[in-house]
Amino acid sequence: MNKDKIFIYNTLHKKKELLEPITPGKIGLYVCGPTVYGEPHLGHTRPAITFDIVFRYLKHVGYQVRYVRNITDVGHLENDADEGEDKIAKKARLDQLEPMEVAQFYIDSYHFAMDKLNVLRPSIEPRASGHIIEQIEMVQQILEKGYAYVSEGSVYFDVVKFDQDFGYGKLSGRNLDEMISNTRTLDGQDEKRNSADFALWKKAAPEHIMKWNSPWSLGFPGWHIECTAMSTKYLGDHFDIHGGGMDLIFPHHESEVCQSTVANGIESVKYWMHNNMITINGQKMGKSLNNFITLNQFFTGDHPLLEQAYQPMTIRFFILQAHYRGTLDFSNEALQAADKGYKRLMTAVATARELSPTEGAENIGIQKIMDECYDAMNDDFNTPITIAGLFEAVRITNSIKDGNLKINKEELTLLNQLFQAFVFDIFGLLESELGGDDQLVDGLMQTIINIRTEARAKKDWATSDLIRDELAKLDIVLKDGKDGTSWSKK
Amino acid sequence: MNKDKIFIYNTLHKKKELLEPITPGKIGLYVCGPTVYGEPHLGHTRPAITFDIVFRYLKHVGYQVRYVRNITDVGHLENDADEGEDKIAKKARLDQLEPMEVAQFYIDSYHFAMDKLNVLRPSIEPRASGHIIEQIEMVQQILEKGYAYVSEGSVYFDVVKFDQDFGYGKLSGRNLDEMISNTRTLDGQDEKRNSADFALWKKAAPEHIMKWNSPWSLGFPGWHIECTAMSTKYLGDHFDIHGGGMDLIFPHHESEVCQSTVANGIESVKYWMHNNMITINGQKMGKSLNNFITLNQFFTGDHPLLEQAYQPMTIRFFILQAHYRGTLDFSNEALQAADKGYKRLMTAVATARELSPTEGAENIGIQKIMDECYDAMNDDFNTPITIAGLFEAVRITNSIKDGNLKINKEELTLLNQLFQAFVFDIFGLLESELGGDDQLVDGLMQTIINIRTEARAKKDWATSDLIRDELAKLDIVLKDGKDGTSWSKK
Repeated sequence: MNKDKIFIYNTLHKKKELLEPITPGKIGLYVCGPTVYGEPHLGHTRPAITFDIVFRYLKHVGYQVRYVRNITDVGHLENDADEGEDKIAKKARLDQLEPMEVAQFYIDSYHFAMDKLNVLRPSIEPRASGHIIEQIEMVQQILEKGYAYVSEGSVYFDVVKFDQDFGYGKLSGRNLDEMISNTRTLDGQDEKRNSADFALWKKAAPEHIMKWNSPWSLGFPGWHIECTAMSTKYLGDHFDIHGGGMDLIFPHHESEVCQSTVANGIESVKYWMHNNMITINGQKMGKSLNNFITLNQFFTGDHPLLEQAYQPMTIRFFILQAHYRGTLDFSNEALQAADKGYKRLMTAVATARELSPTEGAENIGIQKIMDECYDAMNDDFNTPITIAGLFEAVRITNSIKDGNLKINKEELTLLNQLFQAFVFDIFGLLESELGGDDQLVDGLMQTIINIRTEARAKKDWATSDLIRDELAKLDIVLKDGKDGTSWSKK
Repeated sequence: MNKDKIFIYNTLHKKKELLEPITPGKIGLYVCGPTVYGEPHLGHTRPAITFDIVFRYLKHVGYQVRYVRNITDVGHLENDADEGEDKIAKKARLDQLEPMEVAQFYIDSYHFAMDKLNVLRPSIEPRASGHIIEQIEMVQQILEKGYAYVSEGSVYFDVVKFDQDFGYGKLSGRNLDEMISNTRTLDGQDEKRNSADFALWKKAAPEHIMKWNSPWSLGFPGWHIECTAMSTKYLGDHFDIHGGGMDLIFPHHESEVCQSTVANGIESVKYWMHNNMITINGQKMGKSLNNFITLNQFFTGDHPLLEQAYQPMTIRFFILQAHYRGTLDFSNEALQAADKGYKRLMTAVATARELSPTEGAENIGIQKIMDECYDAMNDDFNTPITIAGLFEAVRITNSIKDGNLKINKEELTLLNQLFQAFVFDIFGLLESELGGDDQLVDGLMQTIINIRTEARAKKDWATSDLIRDELAKLDIVLKDGKDGTSWSKK
């Protein structure tokens, strides 16, 4: 492993660049987290797993990583407008919809799902609602520097002035003039000087539930300011990596560039990383398309589009089979293939632990595979190429097991290190779904089947019958076939 | 079940009172949660489980409960004073200690431990650091009403004035005059008018890391104000139940009474509930006493005072065996006894599901047990009396299984409903630690032991040896004793 050779595709410059940390030995990583007003779904998995791999790999090669992933809980839930503000104010607190209760429910759901996918918790998980002061202070800074204006109790970022002084569109490539000429001024937008301006603070309508006092109005922060305020607070005004889905490049991340350039006097982010999207059977995911699948539905199989339940590790492995910048299409066939591949890999990992070395066996190139895996990860976290390397190791493992290949002691140690490093530490795959008690049950059943086979060979029908009866009590049935005896639960 | 008959011991009036919700059908419940600057330990379990039972029971009888449990993450971590403020300010953000990273680590640890204990997540889990605006606003209200004063950038609550107007010490029974005469004025306390006054806002020393701007200073909120601000925000200025450990009555909860009386114009809390403390081998728990045991140490057995690892459900059941207002002493003997009781209960629960009814069997009093269990829970959540009722049901279950007692169909249904309601829904015990694969492994091992016993009876040493060898491969050893053969993993 060589932590001085990691290349990252930087969306800002549209090319791969050598990772050179701002503070030696340390990495500040900020990733846009979930908006917690709905069940965690397939769309949440890709950024979560992509940046989990980045987090794990950077730690693996020796960096101290502070990973901040926010929670957007400043929602837009509204009280029933029919009731009118006065009536609502008179209602008991417990009779009112509490947006934080909704947010908490989905935060917990998100955590439970991410735990199942073995996504590590970030170092800090700040909530937007918990950083209103920091956001107000940043809006004040932007106002003081002259790149924002107050209008009817709201505050807007002045994109035209920013464009003149700093140039707008560096990250997304959008051209401001085109943006403006393509937008008609809409009713209700006349608070803004220009259609391209975006809100830093919004005055709340009476029915809007989540609101705070500010110098401008009782209101709530604009969507973009939370990430700039929280990344600045926890990582400083200049930090290494900012990640998120490609769909966030415009307008969210472009607006972050504007905000930090003015408030911090610097473009805060050195490397911008964006994962590509997930499609389902070739279509974009969406509630209106009836192909919106929650993670719980994947885990239980309870959705018309799913032929079966899928284990969390199958989904994790499936996502790792594609490079994070490539598209990824979910289908039952693809998931079933991923499941087979995952099981084949994990079986080989278990097999490798039990192999015996052969003294004086010739070198069979394990170090080369190890180097190729690190090279792939250093090349913009190329997990599919890394997986190809691991399957070369799987092939070798199975050949040794079958007696067609020999391995010496040093290389056997290295083979096991390779699996430990990439399968568990870096890819974060779990063995437990195959191993643990399941493995013990398999072992005990094999023991019982062996005893029965011996007994039958000796024509000891009493023992053979006893075994069948005892297993029946446990709802286990044996089936004798030409390849031996198999078992199943009733 | 009768939700109109729940009596709660109200610390405020030192007697049991009928629970009459402020808003019909709804309960607002606030509990003081953990301070997240250390590993979750035994001391965290008792309030968490006590109020988990309250939460579960109130929901079980049909209330809609909004349960708010805060996280105190406004810590007192300090930067290295030797370095001086200027030097620290020049350091890169990633080189500085980030208290939120420490807090996040312990929040996650707390959640993982509570999940293992099957403690439900509260409806809302607000963090003190996320509600600075609300706390500042409440301090401003108290200042405006004349019950607080600013001194050297800090704000103090004027306890003497409060005592004159409202009477101090209602909850704790403390007498203000005695408190004052017992306290000598200490150096550095001269900011306060009176030794009994407590801080609402503290100006931060330069080395203090967590600090926010306020009208008075760059500082941080006093410890007591967070609970009043957050309970008011999420439950309203008058809510049903406030819980916490007895050690919080003074000064924390007494100060909350002062704050809410002034800020909200009302004593916010209708019923104050306090759980008693846990001792270890008769001693108070404390880091200096070497008897400080973290939950992880309980789960792994890795502490000099522990003779073995204890499963989370053993700890949960142990806590339920005592009434929440009684003391509870942890010892290996007591935990081992709890483990046996828990397993006996769960075995009977599984047995009851398999029982067959006898047509025309006489009534054996299951409804009476059910009524007694509800009566016990209605009597200030008396879990030990409820457990006594459940063990009466266990005795009956085992008698039916052994053929010494018969049960009719209606009562068998009721028996299973009793176990479902109290063991799972209300007590939140889990079956999985005994069931599932563990049960299958036990069954398979018993099958193998039976075959071996048969083989040895027939002097079939070949089969007996084969079994021993096969099990050895699975790291399982058999031990023959006078009560038969037992097995264990190496």
